[in-house]
Amino acid sequence: GTRGRPADRPATGPRWDRRTTDLLARSALVTERGAGPATASSPTGSPTRGREHAFRVRRIDFAELKGWHFRQPTGNLAHQSGRFFTVEGLRVRTSAGSFPEWHQPIIRQPEVGILGILAKEIDGVLHFLMQAKMEPGNPNLLQLSPTVQATRSNYTRVHRGAPVRYVEYFAGPRQGRILADVLQSEHGSWFYRKHNRNMIVETRDEVPPHPDFCWLTLGQLYELLRRDNTVNMDSRTVLSSLPPLAELPDSRLALTPDAEVLSWLTEHRSTQDWTIELCPLTGLPGWARTEREISREDGRFFDVVAVAVEAGNREVPSWTQPLIEPHGEGVAAFLLHEFDGVPHVLAHARMEGGLPLVVEVAPTVQCVPANYPEDRRPRYLDEVLAAPPARIRYNAVHAEEGGRFRNAVSRYLIVESDGALAAEPLPPGYAWLSVRQLERLTSAGLSVNVQARTLLACLRSVARPS
Amino acid sequence: GTRGRPADRPATGPRWDRRTTDLLARSALVTERGAGPATASSPTGSPTRGREHAFRVRRIDFAELKGWHFRQPTGNLAHQSGRFFTVEGLRVRTSAGSFPEWHQPIIRQPEVGILGILAKEIDGVLHFLMQAKMEPGNPNLLQLSPTVQATRSNYTRVHRGAPVRYVEYFAGPRQGRILADVLQSEHGSWFYRKHNRNMIVETRDEVPPHPDFCWLTLGQLYELLRRDNTVNMDSRTVLSSLPPLAELPDSRLALTPDAEVLSWLTEHRSTQDWTIELCPLTGLPGWARTEREISREDGRFFDVVAVAVEAGNREVPSWTQPLIEPHGEGVAAFLLHEFDGVPHVLAHARMEGGLPLVVEVAPTVQCVPANYPEDRRPRYLDEVLAAPPARIRYNAVHAEEGGRFRNAVSRYLIVESDGALAAEPLPPGYAWLSVRQLERLTSAGLSVNVQARTLLACLRSVARPS
Repeated sequence: GTRGRPADRPATGPRWDRRTTDLLARSALVTERGAGPATASSPTGSPTRGREHAFRVRRIDFAELKGWHFRQPTGNLAHQSGRFFTVEGLRVRTSAGSFPEWHQPIIRQPEVGILGILAKEIDGVLHFLMQAKMEPGNPNLLQLSPTVQATRSNYTRVHRGAPVRYVEYFAGPRQGRILADVLQSEHGSWFYRKHNRNMIVETRDEVPPHPDFCWLTLGQLYELLRRDNTVNMDSRTVLSSLPPLAELPDSRLALTPDAEVLSWLTEHRSTQDWTIELCPLTGLPGWARTEREISREDGRFFDVVAVAVEAGNREVPSWTQPLIEPHGEGVAAFLLHEFDGVPHVLAHARMEGGLPLVVEVAPTVQCVPANYPEDRRPRYLDEVLAAPPARIRYNAVHAEEGGRFRNAVSRYLIVESDGALAAEPLPPGYAWLSVRQLERLTSAGLSVNVQARTLLACLRSVARPS
Repeated sequence: GTRGRPADRPATGPRWDRRTTDLLARSALVTERGAGPATASSPTGSPTRGREHAFRVRRIDFAELKGWHFRQPTGNLAHQSGRFFTVEGLRVRTSAGSFPEWHQPIIRQPEVGILGILAKEIDGVLHFLMQAKMEPGNPNLLQLSPTVQATRSNYTRVHRGAPVRYVEYFAGPRQGRILADVLQSEHGSWFYRKHNRNMIVETRDEVPPHPDFCWLTLGQLYELLRRDNTVNMDSRTVLSSLPPLAELPDSRLALTPDAEVLSWLTEHRSTQDWTIELCPLTGLPGWARTEREISREDGRFFDVVAVAVEAGNREVPSWTQPLIEPHGEGVAAFLLHEFDGVPHVLAHARMEGGLPLVVEVAPTVQCVPANYPEDRRPRYLDEVLAAPPARIRYNAVHAEEGGRFRNAVSRYLIVESDGALAAEPLPPGYAWLSVRQLERLTSAGLSVNVQARTLLACLRSVARPS
């Protein structure tokens, strides 16, 4: 590319590349088999089938953690090397919402990592290099992950670990063409200001194969995305950053002009009053630590726990680490409605204590229902759960970041709204955005939360061109 | 608008409004006189001429500050009411750049304020309601400011001050049409993570007049923007958030595709390694406090000082406050070049310790030359200062935020690059962006720093349609 280094006679070209749109659309049409394994062969691609038996994960006491300790006097849980992440306390005070103040443990990991998918045209069809990766928190351990999931320490090898395979396509001097490269936040309820670089890079190089990796088409990825617990969170967020597949004829229409959509988000980012501060994990009000977990005295929300990851043979490393384990299955859902034939989703400007800009665009519903008594059910939860099957456009269970969260599964739903609801006045904080507007905010970065980005990827998996 | 409250039969419309573009273009053509005062009558609009004599500002000792004190044990400078802002310490550690670690005082003001300009079509021409406002740090005290400059405490009146005039158009239930509403950062060298809401709202209401306010066309504002010290920083940043005046035929072409431009910014936001932390002002390494100022032991960069603002008559309030006073006049400049007839600026992905996302798009040159010895001159400074007059497209002196900075003036320059320089390989961190790409990043918010946004407004003032 010319980026940063114009050639002797720098020349302009189109700001948006038609070829990318066409390549993506063609790749989405190949659903059964491309140059790699068949979609049907295994949830995680046949070359790696069976490797999940190489691992065993079990809960342990905090005292059994190796290298991790509660650092004094804060009681923050940290690794003695200073690597990885820490579990600290967070205090949130806000003038809005039903909870004016709360405390919680939170994961702090200040490095910006890379989540990168390598793409390559094979026999005229764009393929994506996916990795079958074990993460100790996933209910089924092995899921499809991006080509590269690496923290900065990983890929710069400051700690002299093994080199990260294929990282040279994403860090350092550029090799290939950028399809997407944007900062995106992760779970604002459990991470403190964490954000990663989401990248898709197209190469024309010969890429050396490896048994843990396989090439899949976009159509195959969309098929796999409709299965439970198959495509991991990092893959889902990177896929949500892809440019739109095609310019639909209705893409210039929406219920609300773009300037007002941005204003809606800006307003919710500016008019609430909050103070968000890290604080010591020891003495965190409402939370107590036992030998095995840190949990709320009323048993709600989540625990901090520890696990040992044990390998079935000597070639695979073993380790111990803390994880966050939520109580109960979550629900993340978009209500969908076509206004004048243009698909819109009902978005929520949601405050989460750990988000880099505090408020981002979230799904219509995002909660763990078990945390709420019957008389305080979150808005739209019942509409979503009670929808008749004919209105359910998408329905699958996915796990969140399995390297940090244990059994953090949510049901992801896209439900067609009935016309009456779509004509109702909206409660504060909600707005109908066209799918194109949601895509535009997603491409801008740090504006759409990870649950809404997962749903955007899911929506594309059921709404692709025929 | 329909935002947040679809009517009984919600209907879609265009996402971008052609009418706004036309209105802005027509308003830019009216340069001498609109419905308000003539451009020539006074730098700050005739209705308020002479009111600057009502104020006097003088340097005082810290001990003469009323209500402000050095809070113990941190030594941070704060108001006893908890209002306004604090001056604290900042420690920055970074693996990149020529300064691996530094300490400095910094202003902390966590509230998101509103900078809002009210617009109204008068006799078929869009006018903007500007305020002649005194700010104690401005070299000439009185400058043209937005209709509203208000912190959240101001406009919600938690401290029971006087109501902020015209704030009802910008906060609370929406009255009018949004032309722009976006979060923008302020000086990352002197503010800790400060960002404000930049708004332009068009009303059809009768707006009650006030002697400190006047209606000016966009053409008049652009004429005034070419004068020294006339249009204040808040006005300049709000004007930079206006949508582009017209779709030029070349707006779809650029040297670098948009995806790679975003990637360039993302890369610089992710691949550097830094730790930025607030720390106590007392004992800040390299800095010393006297009775009158806090300054570096080597005399470079800036001081923290105190001033008394005294009114010439009893109707105007008097007060005291701290200000940051830099040493020497700054330079902020864009090199400009047309590639294949498409105007581009040479942008710099610049790290500033106080920016919300640490790195933003900055001008080609941004520095106070006096801070650098002859053998360590910042890149491109000499090219900009030595440019022959025929290459200088814009040249004026502007003051930064006069409510926080004293005599913080910079020369803003837009200089045509020669062709040889434009064909050279670029040093790391620099990229040619088309003006449209700079506008797009500006509209997204928190991506273009305040000096580059001022230059964008200045560029529009000399490049408007004929």
